[in-house]
Amino acid sequence: MIVHRLEKNPILKPEDIAAYHDDHEVIGVFNAGVAELNGETLLLLRVAERPVQNNPDEVKTTVVDFSYGEPQVKVLSLKKDDEGYDFSDPRTILFNETQRRTAFLTSLSYIRIARSSDGKSFTVDDAPFIYPEIAAESWGVEDPRVTQIEDTYYIQYSAISDKGVAVGLVSTKDFVSYERLGLIFPPENKDVAIFPEKMNGKYYALHRPVPKGIGQPEIWLAESDNLLYWGNHQHLLGLSEDGWDNGRIGGGAVPFKTSQGWLEIYHAADRDDRYCLGAVLLDLEDPSKVLAKTKEPILAPEADYETNGFFGDVVFTCGVTLQNQSLRIYYGVSDTSMAVCEVALDDILSRLTDV
Amino acid sequence: MIVHRLEKNPILKPEDIAAYHDDHEVIGVFNAGVAELNGETLLLLRVAERPVQNNPDEVKTTVVDFSYGEPQVKVLSLKKDDEGYDFSDPRTILFNETQRRTAFLTSLSYIRIARSSDGKSFTVDDAPFIYPEIAAESWGVEDPRVTQIEDTYYIQYSAISDKGVAVGLVSTKDFVSYERLGLIFPPENKDVAIFPEKMNGKYYALHRPVPKGIGQPEIWLAESDNLLYWGNHQHLLGLSEDGWDNGRIGGGAVPFKTSQGWLEIYHAADRDDRYCLGAVLLDLEDPSKVLAKTKEPILAPEADYETNGFFGDVVFTCGVTLQNQSLRIYYGVSDTSMAVCEVALDDILSRLTDV
Repeated sequence: MIVHRLEKNPILKPEDIAAYHDDHEVIGVFNAGVAELNGETLLLLRVAERPVQNNPDEVKTTVVDFSYGEPQVKVLSLKKDDEGYDFSDPRTILFNETQRRTAFLTSLSYIRIARSSDGKSFTVDDAPFIYPEIAAESWGVEDPRVTQIEDTYYIQYSAISDKGVAVGLVSTKDFVSYERLGLIFPPENKDVAIFPEKMNGKYYALHRPVPKGIGQPEIWLAESDNLLYWGNHQHLLGLSEDGWDNGRIGGGAVPFKTSQGWLEIYHAADRDDRYCLGAVLLDLEDPSKVLAKTKEPILAPEADYETNGFFGDVVFTCGVTLQNQSLRIYYGVSDTSMAVCEVALDDILSRLTDV
Repeated sequence: MIVHRLEKNPILKPEDIAAYHDDHEVIGVFNAGVAELNGETLLLLRVAERPVQNNPDEVKTTVVDFSYGEPQVKVLSLKKDDEGYDFSDPRTILFNETQRRTAFLTSLSYIRIARSSDGKSFTVDDAPFIYPEIAAESWGVEDPRVTQIEDTYYIQYSAISDKGVAVGLVSTKDFVSYERLGLIFPPENKDVAIFPEKMNGKYYALHRPVPKGIGQPEIWLAESDNLLYWGNHQHLLGLSEDGWDNGRIGGGAVPFKTSQGWLEIYHAADRDDRYCLGAVLLDLEDPSKVLAKTKEPILAPEADYETNGFFGDVVFTCGVTLQNQSLRIYYGVSDTSMAVCEVALDDILSRLTDV
């Protein structure tokens, strides 16, 4: 597999952009959705901010509190010696109990837009684009995917609160204002990628439930006739018994059409939380049919910025663009920054093998 | 609260009905959905069967295997001294690992119909009504609710396989044949109860996701315009910090209309897995508005058949009928048998308090 990483990677780093909240620091700008509008490439960045940590005995994090009607940005301080919590994961604070439930996230994420005329050099908007607006988003909005259907862009993202990780949908035509379309999947679900056109009169979406008692974090398919309501859920693609994809898998980029089928660039992690990208080919008429997939990752964490960071050994895509026969993959690295690589479409297709 | 339990409770016990599978025993006939058709009361019984356990060193269970196209009923034998498994829960066999994932169920459930002219004495059909027919049902179908909309009955049930606990939907007009309408909620979800009429042009359903990382097993509301596809998910009713409903809650009976609002008889369990029934009142025009609920259970396990059995201390309803102002609650007891009690509707309504 020949992967051309951009020399200027990472293309966007936390230190490149100013925090939106007073007395906060940007600790991540990553996992961006991708859209093309009027000749520009737009990245819908997940920006993660946390309060400046100025007390070594405390962990401070931020939520948006909707308990009193009007949303209030609220900084929480937890004592590091509080035995009720487990601070060992940089991403989440767990209750110190056998069930390992999540008490808080360590940062608040929202969506901010970056714009580029060449797809490589980006200017980041000052203000958020999608910011927590409902109680189901009080812990943040994360990991957007953008599906263009005619002149409307549908943005699917993780809506996170103490009630769980659900999937929100908004639509926009101009990336200035947007319309809220509700939560389209209940907890626990993420990594939703809506296909850009109907098949047999139906819309389809990849989604990734995380069941508790039975089952694994794997890719499912759902259908819809209006993008708001989803059903006819079917299990699509599972973990391997061993290898790079034996921990969790989920949709990545919005699927795009090739002559051979829908190509989906997805992510998978092994049981050590090392995240790679793979490709799977789905039938053009019936996306519940898995035709082929890459046996080995098409992208694995190798560069320094992919192996080191806030949460290292992660490459994670929410969107790609296609220039002639070259695929440009935008991907978050180490839950910290954004990177870009280019791969020949033929190279990916030649590595697909029957499942 | 004045609860009249039928003297002849339990009205249906495992020993009352013959196993459908050769060399199997019925270990449960419980958690029945309820329908009224042509003056008869129909119970859609969850019947749980397992292989006759004739080797004290083994645990045998049954699945329906769809790996080879045609479904095959398959008996699995596990050695009790296999350290890979944990046999301590009578309902499920767990992998012996920190994640406590479910390896198998200890029985296979399917739906069988019982018919009655007085609502109290039932004759059980010999053959199953809904039996596993797709891979997503290979571990069984459980806990049906029946929603009548005009002359069509929609049956919502748990569809269980190694891929998770999802929610299936079928429709019937005669309880002889039915049409499959797909999985309407992906894993992990159960306890779905569809409202029997539209509000503001939309169908509504209660559902109960079980998230893994963040959130609790609590009641959510979804809407639909065709009963097949669901969206606009909203969190509806949560656990209490302490008390009879601090472990998990979920929809029970199909909600029914009163002058004051939609009345929903739901179940809740505490952290010791003691299951009780409560009542919650929802706005007639907007069921996302919780108007009031009972602070204490309206039914708790007290009778011997409610406290002892396959899994004791469980009362669990999937359906009720209303005779004038008296509510007849059909409920599973101890994951073993079916029981009936009657409660004055006014008595429930008088115990509702603001939330």
